[in-house]
Amino acid sequence: MDVISDRTAAVSPPFDAGRLDALMEAAGLDALLATSPHATRYLLGGYRFFLYDRLDAIGASRYLPVVGYVRGRPDRAFFVGAGNEAWGTDAHPLWVPDVALVSWSSQTAGRAAGQRLAARLPRGAAARVGIEPPYLPSDARTAWDDDLRGVALVDATGVLDELRAVKTPGELAVMRDASEAVVDAMLATFAALAPGATTAQAAERLRLEQTRRGLVYDYALVAAGPHLGRAPTRDRVVAPGDVLSLDSGADRDGYTADLTRMGLAGAPTHRHDDLLAQVDAVQQAVRAAVAPGRRGGDLFDVAATTIAGLPDAAHLSFLAHGTGLLTHEAPRLTDSGSPPYPATHRERPLEAGMVLSIESQVADPELGLVKLEDTVFVIEQGNEAVGDRGRGWNRLGG
Amino acid sequence: MDVISDRTAAVSPPFDAGRLDALMEAAGLDALLATSPHATRYLLGGYRFFLYDRLDAIGASRYLPVVGYVRGRPDRAFFVGAGNEAWGTDAHPLWVPDVALVSWSSQTAGRAAGQRLAARLPRGAAARVGIEPPYLPSDARTAWDDDLRGVALVDATGVLDELRAVKTPGELAVMRDASEAVVDAMLATFAALAPGATTAQAAERLRLEQTRRGLVYDYALVAAGPHLGRAPTRDRVVAPGDVLSLDSGADRDGYTADLTRMGLAGAPTHRHDDLLAQVDAVQQAVRAAVAPGRRGGDLFDVAATTIAGLPDAAHLSFLAHGTGLLTHEAPRLTDSGSPPYPATHRERPLEAGMVLSIESQVADPELGLVKLEDTVFVIEQGNEAVGDRGRGWNRLGG
Repeated sequence: MDVISDRTAAVSPPFDAGRLDALMEAAGLDALLATSPHATRYLLGGYRFFLYDRLDAIGASRYLPVVGYVRGRPDRAFFVGAGNEAWGTDAHPLWVPDVALVSWSSQTAGRAAGQRLAARLPRGAAARVGIEPPYLPSDARTAWDDDLRGVALVDATGVLDELRAVKTPGELAVMRDASEAVVDAMLATFAALAPGATTAQAAERLRLEQTRRGLVYDYALVAAGPHLGRAPTRDRVVAPGDVLSLDSGADRDGYTADLTRMGLAGAPTHRHDDLLAQVDAVQQAVRAAVAPGRRGGDLFDVAATTIAGLPDAAHLSFLAHGTGLLTHEAPRLTDSGSPPYPATHRERPLEAGMVLSIESQVADPELGLVKLEDTVFVIEQGNEAVGDRGRGWNRLGG
Repeated sequence: MDVISDRTAAVSPPFDAGRLDALMEAAGLDALLATSPHATRYLLGGYRFFLYDRLDAIGASRYLPVVGYVRGRPDRAFFVGAGNEAWGTDAHPLWVPDVALVSWSSQTAGRAAGQRLAARLPRGAAARVGIEPPYLPSDARTAWDDDLRGVALVDATGVLDELRAVKTPGELAVMRDASEAVVDAMLATFAALAPGATTAQAAERLRLEQTRRGLVYDYALVAAGPHLGRAPTRDRVVAPGDVLSLDSGADRDGYTADLTRMGLAGAPTHRHDDLLAQVDAVQQAVRAAVAPGRRGGDLFDVAATTIAGLPDAAHLSFLAHGTGLLTHEAPRLTDSGSPPYPATHRERPLEAGMVLSIESQVADPELGLVKLEDTVFVIEQGNEAVGDRGRGWNRLGG
């Protein structure tokens, strides 16, 4: 360790390199080649080249950022970027000692990364290198075959996901701000809409209100009236008396905020109030169970018990997931549907600094979708909900 | 052909299937597996699942739309989408006869697509299947290995790019509208800014003005004063007398509009007017050369000749590229930097329905970047510039 400390004195990674090294050691990884927008952004301290942030095509190929990292040796880390990327790195200097702005395609990016990594691995030894298969283009993978002959490529998605599970105070500040702004944008949208609006108009207004607040719109799921379809469409009108759910994600500096608030095209009836109260009862019961040391799966147990005691149990459902640079990231509390990635945190304790999205809904056959989704931080004292406003019925038109 | 016509009576692809079949035949392709956002959108008549349009992560993996197409048999086309994608396809029914909304990861999408395609290929025959390597995740590729054993996978990026080279009247209408809106947004941005604004503020205002006009912001390259760095940043102020270039792409229904207009923090001097006139002289000379039957490379020859006769030739440069669903797409007029994709249209005639982006700039050592970029349609009568306003000096503050 002394030698390593000496060598790394000149570089200071913006993430917890000790945590990454430990995760890599546990997974038997000697090095990493990260290629996803989220993992490269995290490893580069929030940096993403603005030019290809949304549209990543370059010529007939694509932009592929690659961060190479050798376990225990941040001084040997490297970045392969695009040939015109000095526009980005001049404005946001990178910590990585070797920055190669050379690629004009995923193929050339893969080759440049393979050459750099090969020069950093011990000759003749069988190395294990972590990759992100869903975010590694097939031609980048092929391009480094010659240079990385004999190397075992291993799925490191879980390692990189786990690295981000506990947020820093700086990350939490951004996520708090993003959640507050998403809720502000939703309340402004409800106030601006009137009965007769389409769900497409609702989504478009929300996109504008998010943009006004400096957020980048990601998506909106919008359900109106008794229909459970959630695509914003010009064909569906919010009729007088209809419920309107806005479930939307938007991001700031790459961190997403994903919340749901309810609107109503009229005054709430007793039934409206009752359904939303049941949804809120599940949310509050789960929120109270969020604390460091609590088992991740406890949240689902608490939700199930609460739902079982409610009158509309048959139509109530619950979900919780970690959130951050991805809408769903560590802590991973469910494994539904996405093999080969399991629910790694279901049996493990929550930790301060984790961020959860908890969501309860009732799909009522008559009134439609009634839902709340909240962002909850795990803090030393227990929990903190952010963007914790507008959780009742928000009347359209203010 | 009679048999095929009979079988395809029930389906009507929203693109020119005859053109696709001919391109596939020329490339020796029996089938296609398209996986990029742009190619799948095109093959599905403009459809893209709104939920994953910007952030494509699902769980720890990602959304991967796959369109399968067997040459000459649109009736055997299929689509593999996400498990929750009925939200999207209910609102936008797809023409493809087999719609499988089954995947929760790129791996499961790849497997589902491989199984479907294998069932459609002749048994025992050596088939050639076109793929998009930069947009094919390595684990999707691996997932279909068993099902597609013996199949030759061939890069079909060029075939799919060429398929989109000539736009329909409907596409041209969207692109005209998008270009007009991008220019409107730029002029509104210049009017809203005052000397002392940062380039980050300029980009953010432009993003808002684009959003107000229903556009989706893609990027802005912003240069101010004598600096040639084009990253929007809080560190660079537009000082009194500075030039300000806005070079931005935004899209409507997936079609990008990419133009550049010039602002000035004060009144133009003779030198300002002279530089912009030189840039415009190149643009107008090239524009006059845009017509059906003209060789693509002619535009560069005309630009070079024009530039050679101008006083600031040493600092002037020119570029032209096709544009559409991608900022740079067919017709491909340059091959710079992005192997293995060559300049396929340099020696071929332009055709009515192609859309070009032409851009000229002078990098003046004292005043900085002075640039114009215009969208020009190739039409039967010659050419039509869209968004053809605001091409002089636009004073900040209106």
